[in-house]
Amino acid sequence: MKPRELIVELAKKAKVAAAALTALQPHVKNKALLAMADALQDNQAELQKVNEQDLEIGKAQAKSPAFLDRLLLNEKRIRAMADSIRQVAALDDPVGEIYEMRTRPNGLRVGRMRVPIGVIGFIYESRPNVTSDAASLCVKSGNAVILRGGSEAIHSNRKIAEVISDAGIREGLPAGAIQLIPVTEREVVNEMLKLNEYIDLIIPRGGRALIETVVNNSTIPVIKHYDGNCYIYVDASADVEMAKRIILNAKTQRPGVCNAVESLLIHQDIADTLLPVLIPALESAGVEIRACEQVRARFPHLKPATQEDWLTEYLALILSVKIIESTEAAIEFINTYGSHHTDAIITQDHDSAMAFLSRVDSACVFVNASTRFSDGGEFGMGCEVGISTDKLHARGPMGLKELTTSKFIVFGSGQIRE
Amino acid sequence: MKPRELIVELAKKAKVAAAALTALQPHVKNKALLAMADALQDNQAELQKVNEQDLEIGKAQAKSPAFLDRLLLNEKRIRAMADSIRQVAALDDPVGEIYEMRTRPNGLRVGRMRVPIGVIGFIYESRPNVTSDAASLCVKSGNAVILRGGSEAIHSNRKIAEVISDAGIREGLPAGAIQLIPVTEREVVNEMLKLNEYIDLIIPRGGRALIETVVNNSTIPVIKHYDGNCYIYVDASADVEMAKRIILNAKTQRPGVCNAVESLLIHQDIADTLLPVLIPALESAGVEIRACEQVRARFPHLKPATQEDWLTEYLALILSVKIIESTEAAIEFINTYGSHHTDAIITQDHDSAMAFLSRVDSACVFVNASTRFSDGGEFGMGCEVGISTDKLHARGPMGLKELTTSKFIVFGSGQIRE
Repeated sequence: MKPRELIVELAKKAKVAAAALTALQPHVKNKALLAMADALQDNQAELQKVNEQDLEIGKAQAKSPAFLDRLLLNEKRIRAMADSIRQVAALDDPVGEIYEMRTRPNGLRVGRMRVPIGVIGFIYESRPNVTSDAASLCVKSGNAVILRGGSEAIHSNRKIAEVISDAGIREGLPAGAIQLIPVTEREVVNEMLKLNEYIDLIIPRGGRALIETVVNNSTIPVIKHYDGNCYIYVDASADVEMAKRIILNAKTQRPGVCNAVESLLIHQDIADTLLPVLIPALESAGVEIRACEQVRARFPHLKPATQEDWLTEYLALILSVKIIESTEAAIEFINTYGSHHTDAIITQDHDSAMAFLSRVDSACVFVNASTRFSDGGEFGMGCEVGISTDKLHARGPMGLKELTTSKFIVFGSGQIRE
Repeated sequence: MKPRELIVELAKKAKVAAAALTALQPHVKNKALLAMADALQDNQAELQKVNEQDLEIGKAQAKSPAFLDRLLLNEKRIRAMADSIRQVAALDDPVGEIYEMRTRPNGLRVGRMRVPIGVIGFIYESRPNVTSDAASLCVKSGNAVILRGGSEAIHSNRKIAEVISDAGIREGLPAGAIQLIPVTEREVVNEMLKLNEYIDLIIPRGGRALIETVVNNSTIPVIKHYDGNCYIYVDASADVEMAKRIILNAKTQRPGVCNAVESLLIHQDIADTLLPVLIPALESAGVEIRACEQVRARFPHLKPATQEDWLTEYLALILSVKIIESTEAAIEFINTYGSHHTDAIITQDHDSAMAFLSRVDSACVFVNASTRFSDGGEFGMGCEVGISTDKLHARGPMGLKELTTSKFIVFGSGQIRE
């Protein structure tokens, strides 16, 4: 089948499924989700067998051990995927909620109803568990999903999608609720990005190159999940012990994720109190420091930071550190060099805290807490599709609610407009 | 200046202005808005003079009287433009609102803060008053705006933008808060649609061709304002008098607007009660009826409706009428042929009402009220940029709140993640 024919067929099927999903009761969706979870564990042996194929291709291409580890499916990981689906089943159903209801002077009652978005195209490059995570979130929120995973995991992804889709359909999901593009040709994605008639939203999650390709080619709305070059700014009034504790946590607790801190700005009035405590602590935690000239004047053994460092998401035990003259300058620096993901201020001063909150142009802005809390689960949203760095529709952790839209609903009793 | 240089210069200036607008207190923005309103009236004579140029070009091009009337600026219309800005000044400021605050088990307080989107590109073809309406809504919501009006009104639009921008700047708005593209070349728009670095949102308002061009060329998020092919469905249980009253109002009160009804579906069990009352009433109100075969079997003098009629926004005293076998079939028909703008059911039956509300896939869904109420003002939102037919970010009447985004804010007291 030609790429266009293939994807149009999938998309049409998804659109039909989306209409049926909108009308499903929560208990039907939850029963299907639990069946999907069980099916993954029941098919563990077969999943591991097809996963071997991906692993062997990866080995033949001399991929790194870290790459191969991300691909690997074992008993523990398959159980974790199943448990994750069970957690989604346990969340409140977002669909059908009526809110912001008000009565107008003419007696009309006007409000909004939360409804599914429709058909979502989910494009990702990463671990096979994203396939079942994304599918379960879309089912719960009443959306049909077309999944497009990376070619490195195509055998695993195909099997996962088949197993959960079949189990869901047996329990009442419409055929077409969960579909994975079974081929790896790029043309299929390029055609998909133009199918406005059938697809309502594209969510790309992966490297910058992938996301930029999607943005440049899609006529369908896109919610981007870019990288996290997170900043912490230590204000002049900060509690030094708190600053040290938060910075160490944000840098070292899990350096390879998007909400780890990558750059540090320190107010000039606190530099000589904080740095002598902080620098040795970071160094003994194995953190490589890249410093501005003012910091190096005090600690000449540190590596100099280049312009590039302020723009870089290291995802490693590296931290760039700069002394800055004011909160004002810190806000401007973060808005210029940060990635608008998550940034924090450490301060005891109310005005500095509120100025930072209001004017740092990022999806998540923190006062006196580690950036590592930037996460749907930690925010109490239950789970997340990812962290949107876009400004429209969903900004920050994107949970079930962000996978819905609303419609205005109006209850009248015969009103006409004069 | 080349198109790209021109628009990049405007966009850079707008981005700087947007950062300053975010920090402006409500009273500063309101004072600027009131000054903008006064300035329009103070410059009435000059506005009318430049408006003459647009009118003369229109006349030389043999444009229709309706077209020329839409272009015309007279004293009454300029006063209406000024009053509209004063109304925007009187609305609550949406920026800075903190909501959905919750306390997490670890003591973190997590919530959201409403903030401006940033820089908005507003592309429209229509009356010159849209220039001042759009500018005032953007200022109030803290956004910088780049306006691109139609070439038919370029002289009027340039002067309006100059007058309000100058007045706003005198009262404390940053230069670049309100800018109009001063030339009519299409290349400028094409370049604008690629400036993701500076522009956060594109809002096109106008004909289908304009909107499609924008969607196909923009890499910036777009909120579309498509047409309104609105349906009314009369259920078997409807009150006949109410149905007649609502249909007549929705069709004839102002036929040239997007929330007027264009097509009517009638349940087969009520057709013989409703039609003998409704058809003569519509005809004596001057409405041309285009009917399905079942309706024509009862009223053979009516014109037959073609497939095209069910898809058409007439914006005129024309109504297509069809008999249908069930609520189910009506929902499906509307989802297939309607434009997902505003659709209404007339019914006394609770289940029919709720099925229609939940499953008609439109921005606004009404029970027992005229579609003519689909309007930001009527919904109690104060004013509107337009009616979004998109599903993401803003759906339905788009008011000040929809011109903002949110960020997550987190108040801690030194929390770190274990």
